Amino acid sequence: MSLPAAPTTHDVLDAVGAVVTSTVAPAAAEIDRTGAYPRADVDALAGAGALGLLSAPEVGGAGGSLADVAGVLETIARADASTAMVVLMHYAATSVIEPHGPEDVRREIAAGRHLSTLAFSERGSRSHFWAPVSTATAVDGGVRLDAAKSWVTSAGEADSYVWSSRPVEADGPMTLWLVPAGTAGIAVAGTFDGFGLRGNASTPMSADGAVVPSSARLADDGAGLDVALGTALPTFLVGNAAVSLGLMEALVDEAAGHVTTTRLEHLGQTLAEQPATQRTFAALRTRVDATRAFLTDTLTALGSGRPDATLRVLQVKAVCAEAAADVADGVMRLCGGAAFRKELGIERRYRDALAARVMAPTTDALHDFVGRATLGLPLFGGA
Amino acid sequence: MSLPAAPTTHDVLDAVGAVVTSTVAPAAAEIDRTGAYPRADVDALAGAGALGLLSAPEVGGAGGSLADVAGVLETIARADASTAMVVLMHYAATSVIEPHGPEDVRREIAAGRHLSTLAFSERGSRSHFWAPVSTATAVDGGVRLDAAKSWVTSAGEADSYVWSSRPVEADGPMTLWLVPAGTAGIAVAGTFDGFGLRGNASTPMSADGAVVPSSARLADDGAGLDVALGTALPTFLVGNAAVSLGLMEALVDEAAGHVTTTRLEHLGQTLAEQPATQRTFAALRTRVDATRAFLTDTLTALGSGRPDATLRVLQVKAVCAEAAADVADGVMRLCGGAAFRKELGIERRYRDALAARVMAPTTDALHDFVGRATLGLPLFGGA
Amino acid sequence: MSLPAAPTTHDVLDAVGAVVTSTVAPAAAEIDRTGAYPRADVDALAGAGALGLLSAPEVGGAGGSLADVAGVLETIARADASTAMVVLMHYAATSVIEPHGPEDVRREIAAGRHLSTLAFSERGSRSHFWAPVSTATAVDGGVRLDAAKSWVTSAGEADSYVWSSRPVEADGPMTLWLVPAGTAGIAVAGTFDGFGLRGNASTPMSADGAVVPSSARLADDGAGLDVALGTALPTFLVGNAAVSLGLMEALVDEAAGHVTTTRLEHLGQTLAEQPATQRTFAALRTRVDATRAFLTDTLTALGSGRPDATLRVLQVKAVCAEAAADVADGVMRLCGGAAFRKELGIERRYRDALAARVMAPTTDALHDFVGRATLGLPLFGGA
Amino acid sequence: MSLPAAPTTHDVLDAVGAVVTSTVAPAAAEIDRTGAYPRADVDALAGAGALGLLSAPEVGGAGGSLADVAGVLETIARADASTAMVVLMHYAATSVIEPHGPEDVRREIAAGRHLSTLAFSERGSRSHFWAPVSTATAVDGGVRLDAAKSWVTSAGEADSYVWSSRPVEADGPMTLWLVPAGTAGIAVAGTFDGFGLRGNASTPMSADGAVVPSSARLADDGAGLDVALGTALPTFLVGNAAVSLGLMEALVDEAAGHVTTTRLEHLGQTLAEQPATQRTFAALRTRVDATRAFLTDTLTALGSGRPDATLRVLQVKAVCAEAAADVADGVMRLCGGAAFRKELGIERRYRDALAARVMAPTTDALHDFVGRATLGLPLFGGA
Repeated sequence: MSLPAAPTTHDVLDAVGAVVTSTVAPAAAEIDRTGAYPRADVDALAGAGALGLLSAPEVGGAGGSLADVAGVLETIARADASTAMVVLMHYAATSVIEPHGPEDVRREIAAGRHLSTLAFSERGSRSHFWAPVSTATAVDGGVRLDAAKSWVTSAGEADSYVWSSRPVEADGPMTLWLVPAGTAGIAVAGTFDGFGLRGNASTPMSADGAVVPSSARLADDGAGLDVALGTALPTFLVGNAAVSLGLMEALVDEAAGHVTTTRLEHLGQTLAEQPATQRTFAALRTRVDATRAFLTDTLTALGSGRPDATLRVLQVKAVCAEAAADVADGVMRLCGGAAFRKELGIERRYRDALAARVMAPTTDALHDFVGRATLGLPLFGGA
Repeated sequence: MSLPAAPTTHDVLDAVGAVVTSTVAPAAAEIDRTGAYPRADVDALAGAGALGLLSAPEVGGAGGSLADVAGVLETIARADASTAMVVLMHYAATSVIEPHGPEDVRREIAAGRHLSTLAFSERGSRSHFWAPVSTATAVDGGVRLDAAKSWVTSAGEADSYVWSSRPVEADGPMTLWLVPAGTAGIAVAGTFDGFGLRGNASTPMSADGAVVPSSARLADDGAGLDVALGTALPTFLVGNAAVSLGLMEALVDEAAGHVTTTRLEHLGQTLAEQPATQRTFAALRTRVDATRAFLTDTLTALGSGRPDATLRVLQVKAVCAEAAADVADGVMRLCGGAAFRKELGIERRYRDALAARVMAPTTDALHDFVGRATLGLPLFGGA
Repeated sequence: MSLPAAPTTHDVLDAVGAVVTSTVAPAAAEIDRTGAYPRADVDALAGAGALGLLSAPEVGGAGGSLADVAGVLETIARADASTAMVVLMHYAATSVIEPHGPEDVRREIAAGRHLSTLAFSERGSRSHFWAPVSTATAVDGGVRLDAAKSWVTSAGEADSYVWSSRPVEADGPMTLWLVPAGTAGIAVAGTFDGFGLRGNASTPMSADGAVVPSSARLADDGAGLDVALGTALPTFLVGNAAVSLGLMEALVDEAAGHVTTTRLEHLGQTLAEQPATQRTFAALRTRVDATRAFLTDTLTALGSGRPDATLRVLQVKAVCAEAAADVADGVMRLCGGAAFRKELGIERRYRDALAARVMAPTTDALHDFVGRATLGLPLFGGA
Repeated sequence: MSLPAAPTTHDVLDAVGAVVTSTVAPAAAEIDRTGAYPRADVDALAGAGALGLLSAPEVGGAGGSLADVAGVLETIARADASTAMVVLMHYAATSVIEPHGPEDVRREIAAGRHLSTLAFSERGSRSHFWAPVSTATAVDGGVRLDAAKSWVTSAGEADSYVWSSRPVEADGPMTLWLVPAGTAGIAVAGTFDGFGLRGNASTPMSADGAVVPSSARLADDGAGLDVALGTALPTFLVGNAAVSLGLMEALVDEAAGHVTTTRLEHLGQTLAEQPATQRTFAALRTRVDATRAFLTDTLTALGSGRPDATLRVLQVKAVCAEAAADVADGVMRLCGGAAFRKELGIERRYRDALAARVMAPTTDALHDFVGRATLGLPLFGGA
């Protein structure tokens, strides 16, 4: 399947679907087992136009919306959430690079030849990404970055990093930089051997006297948090919600397959014919449907500029992450011992599904924002 | 405020809003206290065109959709869920009478001069309304009904009852009748002194040798369950969901008002300024928003004839009822001792909110249906 | 049944059981309906020796332990939690009066002729009873008290109040006073019309220039919080837990009675014969048994001076209160529409059961204490 | 550390503690990583007298009680739940072999030279172990066994299997056999690559024309279920509860260590100093304490022959398994991204903790039994 020269978002979504079937799905279990980075998946998705989805047509991209982002990510996540997370972080980075980055990088992204990612969370402030403690210092020839980043998706694999630090001299909490892979002084600092999302190279990274040119700055010194909140954050939150939804759909599909095909020989019936199974399954299926309705509503609000769009964006990741954790737990329980074995793919998705609620901003942090917003208080009022 | 001669659904919704403010809201606490039937509310709502909302324009009605029903019921329920339940049962009855009932009754309903309701649940089969044990027997001059109905909203207050029984002679589980108020042998059998929804006269009724003419039959003998499932049930489920949503909105509004206006003097801050309050409030507010998204999605599915519309209808009451119970409990907890007193109106809504999950079809019964439907099994396969 | 001259705790427990059967249980529904104070219950329980249970034998009391307190309160609470709460607050007050109060009052309490209670919570600091904002000022002839107490059980009914205020001149957060009923300037400030525990006269009280003699002080000026934490709090927490347990036992008993005696005629079986009912009931029954085990363990720890006794005491009210709320909700759901009507007594206990978790110290406040204690932090470190 | 010739249960518990520290704990992470059988752990525990704990003194055992079993298993499970599960299944088997097995095997078990296990669950009847579909047929020279066992702990590693089948000719649901390792026709049928408890070799086993002597029968033909319910089941349920408790203790310890030592640099405080962390931690710590109280109560009931002892035994595994799942989930959430990495040991215990609720009898199955027992219905009345 080859893409047209100027692919529409429809073309991309179709091509992604094909790549997921041919490439992503078959590799998922092994990527989970070994924790290897899904390089072949990323290459195939690049070929399907996925990396340029959010890029503007003027640089050769598909000019997609967050609804398109959600569609692509859900499709990938149904097969492999690790790969979906790699693409999601690329979209979050792209949403900063598009308005603030250099045209050559934008063109490379649009053409599927450049993978980017975010480097936000830090050892010192942990999941409070809005309060970096790492530094940027003006030096001869540019700006020196020093940092201990705690989790960077595609660490050592991406072509660039959208990197947060304290400002050089401005007031304000944060400045953003576009740090190219290979910058001296930037290093992957460890490996990732985790519970879930094992294939996205989410390792710590360090910057130790890394120097970037002043032109690497994305937006004004000190303006980084506004940019992050205005572009990267909505993209991340909506995309993360879509990944959770894809995982849930896959989990409930696996559960349906299991209970309709497994028989209790001594009773002469399938598990699905047991009333308690039906009732439990219904609650899980309904939870997924209700979660999808909320993501749909969020995308509708964004698409039509509804006044509550920003609130929905702040809510949607938590709604989907909590639902994914609950549904995954319910499916594990419903499928019992069978789900405990790796054959069904349920336990892998379960482990992947628990990642969303601890990824920054966590559910608690989002609730803090939503609570202050809906009670008429300033957004960054608490600890 | 007076309605035009041929009111549109918009006119009705506006007029209902005005009546709720002027009449329904001020009376709600007292209706709850005494358990009196909200006769003045019903009369005022009739004057606002609410009773004819679902009636066809050809008999003088507004020709409203289930989306209109949901809008009207949510508006009423924000002020008084008891009154909303009375109107809901009238809509459920109307949805049967419109296609199967006599034109004179339809015209009276459209004109706001006739209130109807359902008489389904029975002592013998309890919440399993699809399995009546009451009887209809052919006698000279018509059909004799004998029954012990367990819960009839507007019992002794409505102008007619859409009444279920076993068939006269057909196979099939149920036949429906339009029983006029005042039919000899029909009696209210007890009073209702309940936990919540105290003002809707939900008492038992008995039929002891009550004779109705054969023409009182709604649809064919034995076809009652199909009619109930095809018309009354969707109306009831969607409308009940809207009542739950109205209650939730009112509860969260009350909570916001309480925490933003109540001060902890020794700490010099309002309750809303406490981080734990913000977090808890956010979770409640988000739950309401997510629940609304599901009702919206259900109405969209119905409006556009989406293939999943029937499934959504089977899900929506349970989604909203469970959310209402959880949100009400969370608001009670958040507002602590203050919510325990009657002044805030929180404890009344809490009691009202718990009704939905036990009203037939209960959450469990709906999950049974949804589970069988989504696992590819026959709908009435279990106990 | 008449008590011996020097009743043992056994005698008291037996006599209380008899009074509960003869007097408390028959009156419970009506007390709930009207919100009347259970004066006849209190008198009968006084006659059974209940008021002197905690009093030392040297003043004529039964010298009971907290285990005895728990036994008496659970027994009363199974029949009427409002009455149990009145007795509980008397015990909490007695535990302060016994070591710090005048002998004449102690003798009156032991003899069953004096009912006391706590007056701690205030409008200004709400459930944070450890931070009173009310004042005590040295004046000619004694000490002047000014306060707006928010919830006082047995307000206007008790013979004395163990009353908190800020110290007269000492450092420290609190001083305690024994304020006799009838003190000029002390008044009941409102009525209580609440969701649950409707019969314990839990109204606000005000002190407006009320003067008590200096001798009314219980323990040193400024030492009130230590006394409250050391005596009244453990008594209240353990006793409150016992009340929750009694409510749970009554609720589960009612549920068992309902499901084993109610038939589904169309299926020819009782509700108890339905597998889903059995499963749900088991979870409720088990929750009650597990909750009892924790109270038993707490009493064992107290009785044997185990090092974790203080921690258990800080935990036990929250464990029992949360369990009571959950079990009550589960019983309401299990018994469906029947529980919604007042006949079964389930909805009354449900309303009563929700009180415990909002009574100070609330579950959240207790968790704050327990969290700090078990993480090695100072007990009053947060907000 | 060497054991005395006739070790007391105290000697065993001490020796087990030492072995856990020296051998079990250091190996746990690697056993989880590779899924290897903990052979060195089992040998060391055998040397500590653990295998003979339940054996009667007359055959050289320590004559331990179920309380001793619980103590040993909790100690092992704090370090490695896989190893604890191996020992637990040995105890369950021993409890059948002691009253019904041959003396030579009993002596070998007591001496720590024979490891046994149960082979109950089957592919055909899945977790309904009380309904085997496998067969035992009288043949020349003994009895022929044919079976597809679905989960056997220590499969291929144990020295014998307590094996269930349908009876040879008696009525009744089950007959038990002691099948020696190495019996021709018995084979391990697959490997176990699972979510948790990865080191206990819980693989399927098959019997294909395996012949055992008639003397291999344990108790009468057809009496197997009574024996299983009377001996193996209580041992398994209590021991499984103890394993869950050990896991919970380890999880909460890890959480306390993490939050007290991890700093938020930008706020200048540890995670433990955050109020929300304290509150969450308290709820988890309290849940563990409450769960321990229930296990203690169960052991007290067993030890004193209390009438409710059998009920407690039927409840205790579910109480502890559900608590373990909840506490593990709460710890994962509390410790966020850090818990997601393998370094802390939290995610391993989390995976291990989820096993208990799906091991037969599952929580649902136990609730079915408890529900019927406490509602006065026959124990095996449902499906």
